[in-house]
Amino acid sequence: MGEFDLIARFFKRPVTLAALGVGDDCALLNPAPGTQLAISSDMLVQGRHFFADVDPRTLGHKSLAVNLSDLAACGAKPLAFTLALALPEVNEPWLAAFADGLFALADAHGCELIGGDTTAGPLNICITVFGEVPVVHGQSQALLRSGAQAGDDLYVSGTVGDARLALDALLGKIELPQEVLHKARLRQELPTPRVALGLALRGLATSAIDVSDGLLGDLGHVLKASGVGATVRTDDAISSIAAYSDYKREGGQFLINLSQNQWQALALAGGDDYELLFTAPAYRRTEVETAALASQTPVRRIGQIDAQTGLRLLGAQGEAVANTFTSFDHFA
Amino acid sequence: MGEFDLIARFFKRPVTLAALGVGDDCALLNPAPGTQLAISSDMLVQGRHFFADVDPRTLGHKSLAVNLSDLAACGAKPLAFTLALALPEVNEPWLAAFADGLFALADAHGCELIGGDTTAGPLNICITVFGEVPVVHGQSQALLRSGAQAGDDLYVSGTVGDARLALDALLGKIELPQEVLHKARLRQELPTPRVALGLALRGLATSAIDVSDGLLGDLGHVLKASGVGATVRTDDAISSIAAYSDYKREGGQFLINLSQNQWQALALAGGDDYELLFTAPAYRRTEVETAALASQTPVRRIGQIDAQTGLRLLGAQGEAVANTFTSFDHFA
Repeated sequence: MGEFDLIARFFKRPVTLAALGVGDDCALLNPAPGTQLAISSDMLVQGRHFFADVDPRTLGHKSLAVNLSDLAACGAKPLAFTLALALPEVNEPWLAAFADGLFALADAHGCELIGGDTTAGPLNICITVFGEVPVVHGQSQALLRSGAQAGDDLYVSGTVGDARLALDALLGKIELPQEVLHKARLRQELPTPRVALGLALRGLATSAIDVSDGLLGDLGHVLKASGVGATVRTDDAISSIAAYSDYKREGGQFLINLSQNQWQALALAGGDDYELLFTAPAYRRTEVETAALASQTPVRRIGQIDAQTGLRLLGAQGEAVANTFTSFDHFA
Repeated sequence: MGEFDLIARFFKRPVTLAALGVGDDCALLNPAPGTQLAISSDMLVQGRHFFADVDPRTLGHKSLAVNLSDLAACGAKPLAFTLALALPEVNEPWLAAFADGLFALADAHGCELIGGDTTAGPLNICITVFGEVPVVHGQSQALLRSGAQAGDDLYVSGTVGDARLALDALLGKIELPQEVLHKARLRQELPTPRVALGLALRGLATSAIDVSDGLLGDLGHVLKASGVGATVRTDDAISSIAAYSDYKREGGQFLINLSQNQWQALALAGGDDYELLFTAPAYRRTEVETAALASQTPVRRIGQIDAQTGLRLLGAQGEAVANTFTSFDHFA
C-alpha cells in the first residue's frame, strides 16, 4: 500500500465545516464572522508519550485528546485538525485501529480532519487543532493564562495524579491492586479533554491552562503570565486523585501503600492529566458550580490566587509544606 | 536548558499579525474579513528528507520552504506557522542555526511563528502553515488541483530535476563536476517556495500543484482531480533542469555523463523540486508571461491538457516515449 492509498483508505473523509479537506495542497477553512481561530500543535513520540505496545485505538484517542485539551483551556470550540504521521511501516490493522480511536473522539467533538502528511520514519504523531472563539465588541472571549487576579479561587477539574499512578505502576515503581491499576490506566490512555467545561467557563474564569506537565508546573505558567502568586491546599489537591478517593472509600484499608508525600507528588506533579486548572473570582462560586454541572465536569477548589508572588503549599492543618515537586520537562 | 527555556530562547518572538503567539495553550488568529484560511502540514524526518549531517541553517529554511510551497500552489498569502520539534538532545549551536534559517525565510515572507511544541525524540520537524486566500463574491480565489481543462497549457516554474541530481550524486550514484554539484545542492537544500508566482496566478491558472514527489506523479494528482489527461513534451521538461542548460551552454561538451533517459527521469520523476506545475487557458499565454515576469519566476510550457484521460509523453521529434518514470512514495 502506497502513501496515497493509505491516506485515501484511512484518513480521507468528507468535510462539512471546512471549505476543502484532505486531497489538495492546502485545506481551506472559512472562519465564521465575529470569531477568531484558536490553534495548537502537539507532537507525540514513542517511548516518550506512549509505549511501543500501546493499543493503537487508545493512541488515536490520546493524540487528538491532548490537542483538544489545549482548545478547552482556551475556551475554544473544536472545528478541525491536521494530522502528520511518521510510520515505521504500513501496518493496516494498526492504522485502522488508530484511525478508529482518533475519529471516535473527533466525531464526539464535531472536529474534522482537513489535511496532513504521512511519511516513513520513527513513529511520530503531530496534530494541529483549530477551534473557534467568539469576539464580542472587539474583545476575544478566549481564556488565557494571563488573567488571574489576587483573591481569585483556584480550581482543578476532574482527577489529577491517576495517569502518573498508572505510569509508575507500569514502570514497576509501585504495586497497585488490579482494579485500581485498570481505572488509572484509563485515565492515562484515554484522557477526557474538558472541552465542555472550557466553553462553560468563557466570560467566567479569569485564567485557565490544561494540566499536562504537572499541576504546580502548569500553575507556575499562569502565575508568571498573570504576575501573581498562589496558595494551594495540598489535601484538597490529593482529594482530586480518583485512586485516593477510592482508597478512602474502603474505610482506610491500605489498598495502596503510598506515603502522604507520594500522594502529594501524584496530585501536584503527576502530569498527563489533561484537566483544566483555572481561576475565577470568589464571588462567582455559584456560577462556577453551575458551569461544572452544565458541562458534567466535576471541579474542585484547591486554593487561591495571592497578590504576593510565589507559591505557598499548605498541609491538612494549614501548616506550610515544602515545595519539592518538579514538573515534567522533556529536556530537564 | 529545559523545554521552556529552549522555546523562550530560540522560538519565542513577538507577533504582529496574530492576536496571540507562542506562550499560551493556543495561538489566536484573526482572519481578515472576506478571506479564508489555507492550511497545510508537512513533516520532515531525518534519513528521509535530510541527512543527519545537514547544515541546520539550510534545514530550518527547507522545513518552512516545503510548507510555503503548498501555500504557493494554493495561491495563498503566507500569514503564520506552528512548529513542532522532536529533538534527540538540546544542541544550542544547532538550534540557533536552525532558527536562523527558519526565521530568515519566515521574515522574507512575512510569515510569523505563532505556536508549537517541543519534545525529546528522534529528530522530526512538523510545520503547519497558514495563509490567506480572498473570497470574491462568495467565490474562493484558491488555486486547486481540480480545475484543469482540455486545451489548457501545462507549465512548470523554475527548474526541476536538479534536487534529485544532487541527491544521486551525494548517494554516489553519479559523478558531478564540483560546480554543478554545488548548484544542484543549493536547489536540494534551499528550495525557493514560489509564493509570488502563486499569488500572481490567482484568477489566471485553472489548476496548480507543487512538485514535491516528481513532476509526472504530481501531474497525475491534477489529472485525476480534474478528470482530464495530458501530453508532456519531455524535451521541454528536460530543458527545465538547470544543470542540463548549463551542460548545453558548454557547447555540448559532456560535463555530465547522463543518457537521455536519465535526463528524462530527473525532470519527470526527480522530486523535491518545490516548483509550481500549473495549467492556464492557451489564449491567456501573454498574461501568464506577465505573471511570471511580475513575480520574477521563470515558467516554461511543457505540454497541454487533453480531454482524453491518461498521460502521453512525446520525444524531441514528436515520437511517443514510454512512461517508465515512477514518483517518490514514502511507502512504495
